[in-house]
Amino acid sequence: MLDVAFAEARLGLAEGGIPIGAALFAADGTLLGRGHNRRVQEDDPSLHAEIAAFRAAGRRRDYRSTIMVTTLSPCWYCSGLIRQFGIGAVVVGESVTFTGGHDWLAEHGVEVTVLDDRRCIDMMATFVAEHPDLWHEDIGAAPSG
Amino acid sequence: MLDVAFAEARLGLAEGGIPIGAALFAADGTLLGRGHNRRVQEDDPSLHAEIAAFRAAGRRRDYRSTIMVTTLSPCWYCSGLIRQFGIGAVVVGESVTFTGGHDWLAEHGVEVTVLDDRRCIDMMATFVAEHPDLWHEDIGAAPSG
Repeated sequence: MLDVAFAEARLGLAEGGIPIGAALFAADGTLLGRGHNRRVQEDDPSLHAEIAAFRAAGRRRDYRSTIMVTTLSPCWYCSGLIRQFGIGAVVVGESVTFTGGHDWLAEHGVEVTVLDDRRCIDMMATFVAEHPDLWHEDIGAAPSG
Repeated sequence: MLDVAFAEARLGLAEGGIPIGAALFAADGTLLGRGHNRRVQEDDPSLHAEIAAFRAAGRRRDYRSTIMVTTLSPCWYCSGLIRQFGIGAVVVGESVTFTGGHDWLAEHGVEVTVLDDRRCIDMMATFVAEHPDLWHEDIGAAPSG
C-alpha cells in the first residue's frame, strides 16, 4: 500500500511540489482515495497529502475500518483529521525527517505502524535540504525573529 | 469578528449546508480569509469551516499573530490545523452543542476565548435536531452497531 502513497509523492515532486503522498484504503485493500501535497501546484496551504487522499475518497459514513497510508509522519493537522474521523489505522512511510502526531494517535486508539522506508526518507531528506523555506512553510514553522 | 463567521454560517445554511462559519484575521483586524462548511454543497468532507477560511487566506509564512474565529468549538481536525500552523489565537462562538479541541489548544499555548453566543447556539442546536445524520457524518461519529 505504501507504493501508492510513494507514487503520489513522486508525482508531486515531478510537478514541482512538496513530495508527500498518501492513500486511504478499505480494510480489504480497496483503494478509496489517493493524493499528494498540492501547496505549490494550487497555491493551496490546506492540501496536505492526507487531506487530499481523504477528500478524494469522498463523503463516507464510517472510517473505523479504513487505513491511511502516508509517506511521512502526519503533522498535527493531518493527525487531527485521522482522530476526528476515527480512521482505524495509519501506516507511516517514515518519521526520520519529520515526526508529527503519530504517537498521539496511537495513544488514542489508532493502530499505528511506522516503517523506515529508505525511498521515502531519501526523497524527503533531499527535498528539505534543497527547499528548506518551502518545507518550513508547509509545516507552519515561522521564520525566527 | 464573530459577525463575519456567523454570516458565513448563515450563508452555509441558506445553501442547504451545515451552518458552521469561520474567518481568519490579522492582529489588526484585517480579514485574511473567510469560509463555511461545504460538505453538502461540494460533496467535500475536507471542507470544515476553519479549513475553508484558512484556505481562503492563501499561502502565508507566519500565523503567530493571526486569529481564527469560528462559530463552533473546533473539532480535532481543525484544532490540529490551528496547532500545526501556530495560529496564535482562537475565538469560539460556542461550545455548547459540540466541544472539540479548544482546551487542548489552550494547553499548547493558543490564546482561546470561548463565547456563549446565543445566535450560534440556536442555529447549531436547531440544525443538529433537524439533521442528526448529516451532523454525525461531519464529525465522523460512525453509526453504532
